[in-house]
Amino acid sequence: MEFTVKELAEVIGAQVEGDAQIRVAGCASLASATPADLVYVDSAKNLDAAARSRAACAIVGPDLHLAGKTLLRSKNPRLAFAKAIGHLMPDESIAQGIHPTAVIAPTAKLAEGAGIGPYAVIEENVEICAGTQIGAHCFVGRRTRIGAGCRIYPRVTIYAGVSVGANVIVHSGAVIGSDGFGFVPTPSGYEKFPQRGGVIVGDNVEIGANTTIDRGALDNTRIGRGVKLDNLVQIAHNNDVGENTVIAAQAGLAGSSAIGKNVVIGGQVGISDHCNIGDGAILVSQSGVAAGKVIRPGAMMFGSPVRPMDKAVEIIMQMGRLPELAKRVRRLEQAANLE
Amino acid sequence: MEFTVKELAEVIGAQVEGDAQIRVAGCASLASATPADLVYVDSAKNLDAAARSRAACAIVGPDLHLAGKTLLRSKNPRLAFAKAIGHLMPDESIAQGIHPTAVIAPTAKLAEGAGIGPYAVIEENVEICAGTQIGAHCFVGRRTRIGAGCRIYPRVTIYAGVSVGANVIVHSGAVIGSDGFGFVPTPSGYEKFPQRGGVIVGDNVEIGANTTIDRGALDNTRIGRGVKLDNLVQIAHNNDVGENTVIAAQAGLAGSSAIGKNVVIGGQVGISDHCNIGDGAILVSQSGVAAGKVIRPGAMMFGSPVRPMDKAVEIIMQMGRLPELAKRVRRLEQAANLE
Amino acid sequence: MEFTVKELAEVIGAQVEGDAQIRVAGCASLASATPADLVYVDSAKNLDAAARSRAACAIVGPDLHLAGKTLLRSKNPRLAFAKAIGHLMPDESIAQGIHPTAVIAPTAKLAEGAGIGPYAVIEENVEICAGTQIGAHCFVGRRTRIGAGCRIYPRVTIYAGVSVGANVIVHSGAVIGSDGFGFVPTPSGYEKFPQRGGVIVGDNVEIGANTTIDRGALDNTRIGRGVKLDNLVQIAHNNDVGENTVIAAQAGLAGSSAIGKNVVIGGQVGISDHCNIGDGAILVSQSGVAAGKVIRPGAMMFGSPVRPMDKAVEIIMQMGRLPELAKRVRRLEQAANLE
Repeated sequence: MEFTVKELAEVIGAQVEGDAQIRVAGCASLASATPADLVYVDSAKNLDAAARSRAACAIVGPDLHLAGKTLLRSKNPRLAFAKAIGHLMPDESIAQGIHPTAVIAPTAKLAEGAGIGPYAVIEENVEICAGTQIGAHCFVGRRTRIGAGCRIYPRVTIYAGVSVGANVIVHSGAVIGSDGFGFVPTPSGYEKFPQRGGVIVGDNVEIGANTTIDRGALDNTRIGRGVKLDNLVQIAHNNDVGENTVIAAQAGLAGSSAIGKNVVIGGQVGISDHCNIGDGAILVSQSGVAAGKVIRPGAMMFGSPVRPMDKAVEIIMQMGRLPELAKRVRRLEQAANLE
Repeated sequence: MEFTVKELAEVIGAQVEGDAQIRVAGCASLASATPADLVYVDSAKNLDAAARSRAACAIVGPDLHLAGKTLLRSKNPRLAFAKAIGHLMPDESIAQGIHPTAVIAPTAKLAEGAGIGPYAVIEENVEICAGTQIGAHCFVGRRTRIGAGCRIYPRVTIYAGVSVGANVIVHSGAVIGSDGFGFVPTPSGYEKFPQRGGVIVGDNVEIGANTTIDRGALDNTRIGRGVKLDNLVQIAHNNDVGENTVIAAQAGLAGSSAIGKNVVIGGQVGISDHCNIGDGAILVSQSGVAAGKVIRPGAMMFGSPVRPMDKAVEIIMQMGRLPELAKRVRRLEQAANLE
Repeated sequence: MEFTVKELAEVIGAQVEGDAQIRVAGCASLASATPADLVYVDSAKNLDAAARSRAACAIVGPDLHLAGKTLLRSKNPRLAFAKAIGHLMPDESIAQGIHPTAVIAPTAKLAEGAGIGPYAVIEENVEICAGTQIGAHCFVGRRTRIGAGCRIYPRVTIYAGVSVGANVIVHSGAVIGSDGFGFVPTPSGYEKFPQRGGVIVGDNVEIGANTTIDRGALDNTRIGRGVKLDNLVQIAHNNDVGENTVIAAQAGLAGSSAIGKNVVIGGQVGISDHCNIGDGAILVSQSGVAAGKVIRPGAMMFGSPVRPMDKAVEIIMQMGRLPELAKRVRRLEQAANLE
């Protein structure tokens, strides 16, 4: 697809400075752009690279000046660029129509316009809403409902009794609704505590590749509207993850925690069971949160176990000086004849 | 399904106090129960919530008193409740009969009553025992044997030459028998050390979603009877995991360790190669065990690298005071004119 | 298959000492070898076990002496043994010929000798080169190219627009080309930043089970020639991993880092975004590298956050003495009347 800068400006809500008739065919980074590509600059430190770029047109922020190119000026150039990519290089289809090899139970309800890929398996009483695309080799268990406009990439498993909202993206290998990890110790070994809750995934959620979300034991595991989960994330049973919270790769939540809204959880963070993480809190990568811990809204925390960021940083600095500190104490002891 | 309290009492081995003719149709948490649901109370601190619950019948421990409901008294209420769930809300089938789309090698032996789901692929000389259900999109490689009564959820890969015991549960996305990570460095890069051992999984094992278990290099990787592995766990080649050991999500074992029986390994724990973890040891979440380390039976360990729990906790407490300690040392130096 | 020691010696480039006409049928560990198995000894400390082994023939290093067996003497016995395994116990086929159930787009180009397993899905304009085997249930997206001689185990997803080199091994459950984790915060939640770059995987790479490699945002994620990735590894968007770098299980790279050649990254290591790891650096297991960090070539680093290994070890030792140090400071304060 190809658009004039004028057309793009309307789509992304930006002001044109320069030749509005230039045609743009794609989006690229500053370094790899061809003259037909659109680029973006959201920081003064990238202006030199932008000037050297072969692109003829750039989206720029309010205060940036860049000679010799047509500019699309925007208050949020990164957001404008995201919209431009969506327009110039739209998502490719995952599945169009119902592939003849899909195994679909007669009781499953597929909305018009839903796409089901090759070898997908859709069990009894599943509901797939309008415009949703289910990729090849996906499995959707009994009674699960998937809202409208979802993109379920190939090779995703959604167990029985799961509810997925609208406009949800699920990447390949993700598993939603597997049994929570619940056992009762007995003298002869562990007995399984059957997991009969479900999973409720809100609208506009994105779930990364090979991420796992367990069903609740009796009640539901909840992933709030707008939550973004990276790859290889573990969400155990009965967690409640608030709206617009972001969880980076390889982080894991043990069971029954309440995670607030707009929380940021870094990569490889571990949160034990029954924690309460306040709205807007930030947990820096590799942090560890002990069972039952309450973290106040907006707090920035780091370490294993976590401490407030400033305290954690000070401790890390002092740890670097610990060998020297030990020598200083030794010297004091010698001076005081306290050896 | 629906049962009287009297019928349930026999199934789960509990004593009825109150109206034994009440009918129960499901199991639920205290907060979400309807009058037809069974609930359980295993701690005095839940008695208030139990009293408020709409459930008409509750399983309770020996010393708990709860007015206005029919009680099922049990020494182990959580175990009794697990049994009740299994009776009132039994497992749904994963695969019944042999789906016509399954690709099954003529030399594969399927016991009567084995179920194979849509698009499953069963290679040459595989043996699937009685009552085992293999879900959609599963792959079972050559010569692999799967014991009786197993539940293999959709989209599991079991490589060639693996032995799985009876009553094993494997969740979606798990991979059993992938190559161990073995290479020989050479001046031109790494040469692969072919991995020709197998994997032996004992009876009553449960394996979580997207967990990976590598085959041994020459000998076998062993997962003992009753072991429970959570999601996204990594078991590298030639580990030997003892009976009834529990490994929480995202923990990983590097190669050739001997893990005892009844060990508890927390989430995100890492165990390097050639370790020896004694029976009943507990490794707290995010702990790290260095290569070759021996941990004595029953020890509780924490930290990276691990230390005995009490020592680790004391160190963590002292780390919190480290900035203050540094100031105190400075003050001492000033007092002693040792700056 | 069965070979004489003489034949094997030629294949693996070793010198025979003893009866060259002995026949060898397999390879095994010292403990489990039968008389027909080949074993290897690369260290004097294994000589006793080797002497007790039932094997009639052993590969040994230059300075090792072992009575009563035919020896295959080699400068690099482990490499020689790896070659012997490959010869005596060759890889089994993953897919031979095009299985009739594979769904292959008419525009896909399959080289002669390529094998495609049952229920594999190959989309438009894919290219699969000579001798490459694609396992059951694999999905290969549009325009992706897979070089010659690759072994793609069952149930692998390779998204659209990915380039895989020659002789690459990909284990089950791996996902290559999923969307990078990129979003733009807005007052109403996160907007997706579409991920339109690709992934370029070099020759001789091995990718472990359930490992995930995200596509770049605009440019490519790169996995250099000879790189070995273990299971459950996360490679986020726009990383560039240098040749012959090894990454152990459950390690993760956040976006846009440059990892040098011959780097060794231990299990569960986390590397934040925009790092630069020099050639030959070693990051010990569970280490954490903060965003933007530069690590010099050949450095050995440990800890979270990482420090040079010797410093990290000294700090860990001093941490163990921290409770005692606190007591010593208290004693000094008492002596100096500074309480």
